[in-house]
Amino acid sequence: MEDKKIPYKIYLEEGEMPKQWYNVRADMKNKPEPLLNPGTLQPMTAEELGHVFCDELVKQELDDTTAYIDIPEEIQSFYKMYRPSPLVRAYCLEQKLDTPAKIYYKFEGNNTSGSHKLNSAIAQAYYAKKQGLKGVTTETGAGQWGTALSMACSYFDLDCKVYMVKVSYEQKPFRREVMRTYGASVTPSPSETTAVGRKILQEHPGTTGSLGCAISEAVEAATSTEGYRYVLGSVLNQVLLHQSIIGLETKIALDKYGIKPDIIIGCAGGGSNLGGLVSPFMGEKLRGEADYRIIAVEPASCPSLTRGKFAYDFCDTGKVCPLAKMYTLGSGFIPSPNHAGGLRYHGMSSILSKLYDDGLMEACSVEQTAVFEAAEQFARVEGILPAPESSHAIRVAIDEAMKCKQTGEEKTIVFGLTGTGYFDMVAYEKFHNGEMNDYIPTDEDLKPGFDSLPKVDK
Amino acid sequence: MEDKKIPYKIYLEEGEMPKQWYNVRADMKNKPEPLLNPGTLQPMTAEELGHVFCDELVKQELDDTTAYIDIPEEIQSFYKMYRPSPLVRAYCLEQKLDTPAKIYYKFEGNNTSGSHKLNSAIAQAYYAKKQGLKGVTTETGAGQWGTALSMACSYFDLDCKVYMVKVSYEQKPFRREVMRTYGASVTPSPSETTAVGRKILQEHPGTTGSLGCAISEAVEAATSTEGYRYVLGSVLNQVLLHQSIIGLETKIALDKYGIKPDIIIGCAGGGSNLGGLVSPFMGEKLRGEADYRIIAVEPASCPSLTRGKFAYDFCDTGKVCPLAKMYTLGSGFIPSPNHAGGLRYHGMSSILSKLYDDGLMEACSVEQTAVFEAAEQFARVEGILPAPESSHAIRVAIDEAMKCKQTGEEKTIVFGLTGTGYFDMVAYEKFHNGEMNDYIPTDEDLKPGFDSLPKVDK
Repeated sequence: MEDKKIPYKIYLEEGEMPKQWYNVRADMKNKPEPLLNPGTLQPMTAEELGHVFCDELVKQELDDTTAYIDIPEEIQSFYKMYRPSPLVRAYCLEQKLDTPAKIYYKFEGNNTSGSHKLNSAIAQAYYAKKQGLKGVTTETGAGQWGTALSMACSYFDLDCKVYMVKVSYEQKPFRREVMRTYGASVTPSPSETTAVGRKILQEHPGTTGSLGCAISEAVEAATSTEGYRYVLGSVLNQVLLHQSIIGLETKIALDKYGIKPDIIIGCAGGGSNLGGLVSPFMGEKLRGEADYRIIAVEPASCPSLTRGKFAYDFCDTGKVCPLAKMYTLGSGFIPSPNHAGGLRYHGMSSILSKLYDDGLMEACSVEQTAVFEAAEQFARVEGILPAPESSHAIRVAIDEAMKCKQTGEEKTIVFGLTGTGYFDMVAYEKFHNGEMNDYIPTDEDLKPGFDSLPKVDK
Repeated sequence: MEDKKIPYKIYLEEGEMPKQWYNVRADMKNKPEPLLNPGTLQPMTAEELGHVFCDELVKQELDDTTAYIDIPEEIQSFYKMYRPSPLVRAYCLEQKLDTPAKIYYKFEGNNTSGSHKLNSAIAQAYYAKKQGLKGVTTETGAGQWGTALSMACSYFDLDCKVYMVKVSYEQKPFRREVMRTYGASVTPSPSETTAVGRKILQEHPGTTGSLGCAISEAVEAATSTEGYRYVLGSVLNQVLLHQSIIGLETKIALDKYGIKPDIIIGCAGGGSNLGGLVSPFMGEKLRGEADYRIIAVEPASCPSLTRGKFAYDFCDTGKVCPLAKMYTLGSGFIPSPNHAGGLRYHGMSSILSKLYDDGLMEACSVEQTAVFEAAEQFARVEGILPAPESSHAIRVAIDEAMKCKQTGEEKTIVFGLTGTGYFDMVAYEKFHNGEMNDYIPTDEDLKPGFDSLPKVDK
C-alpha cells in the first residue's frame, strides 16, 4: 500500500527537465558501424552527408564519443509546449490484471502530432533554421512523422515539403489536412515534381506509391533545391539522440520516487522510440552501474530483429540513401498489405542493432490480433486509446505482468506508450468486425528481401 | 519579464485538486426557473424525474441551495487518470500577436474523448452504478459525448447504449469505432429498436435522422427497460455542477500564482463548458467579492443567447423531455447544414440563461470562417489542433488581445479550450479548400423556430 503515495501521473517541474540529450554511443565499447557511401562503399564523410542533412545534424550523426549534448534553449522552449510527458502508474491496469507487478508507461501522445516524433522534428527544424535554410523535405506514410515535422516547421517559420505516399494521401485525408493546417505543402507521391517521380509514373502508370519512392522524391527535392535539406524521422543516430529526452525524463521521474525498473519495453519499427526510451538505462548497463531487461517488440509480419540479418543495407527501398549496418529484412522486403499495426520498416537503427547483436537487449515479435486485444483492454481501463504501434509494447507489458501473477514476483515494468490511435480507427474497425488476420511470413516470403541485400564485404 | 516565472503549463498536484464541486445556483439571488412537466406545466418533481434520471442526479438537478457538493472518491480516482488538465500560458500566441495582454487557456482535450464531456460522463456513470443500475442510454451527434460516456461506462462496467444520428453513424465512422472500442453498443437512429424510431421510419422512410429523434429513442429505451436510465451531456444543472471542476482547477492554479483574470471567455452550445469554467468566478461576482467580464461565444448561425427568446421551451426537438426556461431559438430551429463548427443546440442552460438575463455575463456571436482562421493561427503557434467548438473562444480571445494591443492595456484573458479537432478534419479541409461559407440566419429564417415555442404562461 505504501507505493500508493506514487501519483497516477508523475510530471517533472520545469526546473527538473533535462537540459542535455544523452548519446548512448559514447558508452558503447563496440560502436555501431558507420554509414557507407553506396558508390564507394567507404564511410560517408561529413561533407558528403552535408549535401543531404543540416551541418549540425551531420555532426550529431557522426559523433560517437560525446555523452551529453546541450539541448538548445529554443528547443527547450518548444518542449515546454508539450513536455514533460507524463510517466503514468497504470494502477487501473494492474488492478484489472490482478498482478503484483508494478506497471508504468511513458505517454508521448499528448501533442497534436499524436506521437513522440515531435521530439526529433523540432530539433531537426531548429538546426535547419539556424543554418539559414529556407525549408526541409521529407516523406510520410500514414502521416505521423509528416504531421510532427509540419508543426515544428510552422513554429520556426520554415517551409515544409512533405511527399506523402499516394494511397495514404487519397485514403487518409485527415492527417493530410492536419499537415496543411500547419502550413506544409503535401504532394502525393509519386509526383511530376521530381525526375524520379516522373520516371516511376512513366514506368508504372497508375501506381499508388510506396514509402521508398516518397523518400527518393524527398531526397531529390532537397538536394536539387537551393536552401533545402532532407530530414528523416527514425533510424538515424541523430534521431535516437533527440529521442533520448523520453528516457531521460523517465529516469528522473523514477529516481524521484526511488523506483528501479526491472523490465523496460518498447515497440520497434525504425527504433526511434525504443532507442530514446532505453538510452539512459542502457548507459547504466553499459557502464556496469545497473542491470535491466530491455525488450524490443516488433510485429510478427515485419520481424527485422527476430528474423532479419545483421548486414549492410540501404536505408530506403529507392536505394538512394547511404548504406547502414543493421538488422534488416532487405530493402526489397514488402510487409503484407493486411498488416494494420504500423512498424513496417525493413531495417532497424544501427545503434539498436549493435546493442542487440551484443546481447544487451532482447527482442520478440507479436501478432496483430493479440496486439489489438491488448490495445482494447488497455483503453478500457486506462482511458487512453493507444496507437497500434504503441500497442505492441502494451501486449508484452501485459504478458510480463501476467507472468508475475503466476510467479508472485513484484517486478516493476516500464513501457513506452508512443502515441494515440485517433487516426487509426479503420484498423480498430477491422478488429471489431473480426476482419483482422494475422500474418507471419514464411522463410520463402522473406527470401526476396534477403536477395535484395547489397554485396558488401564488411 | 517578472511573469516569465509563470510556467507554460500550470498543473495542480494531486493534493491541490478540488474535492468538492461548486453549485453556482446557491449564490444566485434570482434562481434559474424550474423544469416543467410538459403535460401539467407544473414543476417536475423528484419522483417524476426519477423515471428518467438516476436518483442522486435528480437531487443535484433540483438542489439550488447547497454551494459545495462532495466529489465521491471513486470519481476523484477516475479524474486522476486525465486530470488536472493544464492551465496553459499562451506565451507563443501572445508573442505572435505582439499584444501586452496575458492569455491563459484551460485545455480539456487531453483525454481520449477529446473534450471536457468526460467530466460529467464519469459522474453520471458513477451514480448509475451506485444505484445498482445495469446501464444507461444516451444520444450522440458527431460522437463527442457518446465517446465520453462509453469511456465512463467501461470504467464502471456499465452497459452503454448510444443512439447515434444515422448520418453521423454512416459518415463519421471513426468516433463510432472509438465508442465500440470502449464496449458501447451504437445504434444508428432512427432505428427499429424503439416505438418512436419505428414511427419515424414509417413516416419518413430513408431519413438520415436528427439529434431530436435520437434523444427520443434514448429516453424511450431508458424508461422502457428495467435497470436503465437516460443521461444527457449538457444543458442540465447537474452537468454544470460536474463541469465546475474546470473552473475550480483554473481558479486554484491562478490563485497559486496570484493571477487575477480580467476577462473569461468560453464557447457556448448547451453551456456545459462555459458554465463549468465560469462558475467559481461567477460565484465571487455574485457574492460581490470580485468582478470579471465573462463572455459567452456562440456561432452566428445558431445564436441562442444573442438572438433567442428567454422562454420556456422543450429541451429536445422530439418534445419528449421537460420544459426549461432558457434563451432559445425554439426546438423547431434547424441550423444551416453548412455550419461546420458544432454548438448547434437550439437552447442554453437555464443557469447561464438566467445569469445572462440578469446582466451578469455578456454574449457575442462569431462567423465560422473567422473561427477557423483563429483555429489555424492558434494551432500554428500553440501546437494544439483545436476543436471547431473551442475555436469560437479562441477567436474572441484573440480579438480581445488585439484590442489590448491598440489600447496598451495589460489585461489578463482566460479562455476555455474545450477539446481537440482530430475528428473534425473534414471541416478543416473545407476551410483549406476555400469551400467554407458563413451563414447568418435572417429574421425570417428564425421564425419557424420561434413559432415552435410552446405556449406557457410563466
